[in-house]
Amino acid sequence: MSSASPSTVSLVTTPTPRPKRATVHDVAVEAGVSRGTVSRYVNGERYVSASAREAIEAAILKVGYVPNTAARNLVMQRSQAVGFIVHEPHSLFVEDPNIGEILLGANTALSEADYQMAVLIVDSERDTERVARYLSGGLVDGVIIVSARAYDPISRVVERLNLPAAYVGHPPGASTASFVTIDNRGSARAITERLAATGRRRIGMIAAALDRDSGADRLAGFTEALGDRFDERLVEPVALYSYSAGRDAMQALLERAPDVDGVFAASDAVAAGAMEALRAAGRRVPDDVGVVGFDDSAWAKRTLPGLSTVRQPAAGLGRQAALLVLGQLRGEAGAQEVQLESEVVWRDSA
Amino acid sequence: MSSASPSTVSLVTTPTPRPKRATVHDVAVEAGVSRGTVSRYVNGERYVSASAREAIEAAILKVGYVPNTAARNLVMQRSQAVGFIVHEPHSLFVEDPNIGEILLGANTALSEADYQMAVLIVDSERDTERVARYLSGGLVDGVIIVSARAYDPISRVVERLNLPAAYVGHPPGASTASFVTIDNRGSARAITERLAATGRRRIGMIAAALDRDSGADRLAGFTEALGDRFDERLVEPVALYSYSAGRDAMQALLERAPDVDGVFAASDAVAAGAMEALRAAGRRVPDDVGVVGFDDSAWAKRTLPGLSTVRQPAAGLGRQAALLVLGQLRGEAGAQEVQLESEVVWRDSA
Repeated sequence: MSSASPSTVSLVTTPTPRPKRATVHDVAVEAGVSRGTVSRYVNGERYVSASAREAIEAAILKVGYVPNTAARNLVMQRSQAVGFIVHEPHSLFVEDPNIGEILLGANTALSEADYQMAVLIVDSERDTERVARYLSGGLVDGVIIVSARAYDPISRVVERLNLPAAYVGHPPGASTASFVTIDNRGSARAITERLAATGRRRIGMIAAALDRDSGADRLAGFTEALGDRFDERLVEPVALYSYSAGRDAMQALLERAPDVDGVFAASDAVAAGAMEALRAAGRRVPDDVGVVGFDDSAWAKRTLPGLSTVRQPAAGLGRQAALLVLGQLRGEAGAQEVQLESEVVWRDSA
Repeated sequence: MSSASPSTVSLVTTPTPRPKRATVHDVAVEAGVSRGTVSRYVNGERYVSASAREAIEAAILKVGYVPNTAARNLVMQRSQAVGFIVHEPHSLFVEDPNIGEILLGANTALSEADYQMAVLIVDSERDTERVARYLSGGLVDGVIIVSARAYDPISRVVERLNLPAAYVGHPPGASTASFVTIDNRGSARAITERLAATGRRRIGMIAAALDRDSGADRLAGFTEALGDRFDERLVEPVALYSYSAGRDAMQALLERAPDVDGVFAASDAVAAGAMEALRAAGRRVPDDVGVVGFDDSAWAKRTLPGLSTVRQPAAGLGRQAALLVLGQLRGEAGAQEVQLESEVVWRDSA
């Protein structure tokens, strides 16, 4: 993939004359170094000595030079920045430590390649439109998208612009881009089977985010694992991967099915909320009810007892998504799908 | 404040000829609307009917038009974006729900003013240099800075560029910008006095992030509150506001001063870690040791017993910082300092 239609650069005129802008030449004269040295400094290249760097910084301040990156980007058709788009920010930033790990994994890989990561938040309809305009404006060269819903409007914009892109996850309706995934379905099946093997007879699920591939696939894996024993009345769906959603859903499930003796929560935050509701209802974990989660986020190590869960390599997902975008920026092959390993981690909650 | 030296726009030539780029005119003809309507759509203004919007979007797709925001920004000297710089990302994104609230508060205020927020992460020396270049490049019109350390290099860059800026907090060495703060010192004094009033005789503190104003001011307030009873051997300093730092520090404090009967932890995450260490050591909270925190983040409601703490208006801090930057972008008065209210919230941990 490459950027959308290449363009000529047109002469633009300003309505009023402005003072002459300081140039690289002015800085070089003031600093007593060559123009080439100033260019290397401005372009962030190596091989600028500490003394030259100091002289150049002082000269930049004195002559009022602003490196004309915007003009350079216009010619080069690049901003040297990659967007990282986060949907569901409240749930993700406030409730879910995974997003932080994904974000930092992506930042490290982009940083190593000298790309700036710019995190863009989609929190409302207004944000969707504005992010779409931002992406259209050449302010990023590519984009990483996490937690997209099915047929997300941002996905359509990215496709229309033909922007180098990689998703963490694989939302329906975003078919032409690259994806980094884990096997949500297989992992959910594996941990449900493990829970069933502890002798539980009435296993429920708090299913979350069914409009995202991760949520839908985890429910599918749960259903498969139970086979004939699957009882849809034991599935409580919630909108978000959040602690409070898990707590409320567990209360509802206990009222509807007081004999429930096992619960697969669609994330660790959901599981922690469920354990809180079980405690409040006087049910012991794991004695009365076995609980398992998904993520192996910081939540899993803070619950008492420690949470049995599926470990997903959050930083690795972010890093791999960044590498896919960087590959596209170098002109390498188009859409790829990469699946990273996940594993069941068994602790004491079931 | 305004942006740095205004500049003329120079003609730039490209080395090779490129295909002619689709223009607003092409879109207007294809969509059967006026050029003015297309411009309003592209510039994100209101008063574009739903039917015109649909026709324009279809036409943009068909003719391959890319709104030339980069060129427009070059003329207008603006990107319509504001950076949000986060230091200490691991501690903040993974451990501290406050940062998510600050970020979302800022995003909402910027979104209302039709500004795009771009979160920039400083996680290494390399990130510092690259963020500095990004800020120099005209890719943001202003910047919000959270969790800056004293004499932070990014602060120097922002000052040099004369970028509209607001800090959450007030780090030493960043004297000319605007700040949004809470009264860390007064709040720390108030909650320490309240803890002392429960009859505790040997009150310690797990002090964190002493190279930031928040951390240093909380220690100062603690010291003031205890007056003659202050014992520096009961202060355990840690680098970060994190759960694991709190747990390890509480272990160390218990070994050094087994008679400690009250603890002020510099954040709720630190307090939650301290409570875990106390539980592991067989000390009951609040019976044996009273624990208080700072933030009233999601942590405070998840500890058992519920944490007594200082509530800080995290979303409000982000929102106010954004408003200060937006004011500077409109050319309003320069540096301002805004202090928001915080309050002691007393629960059951002390």
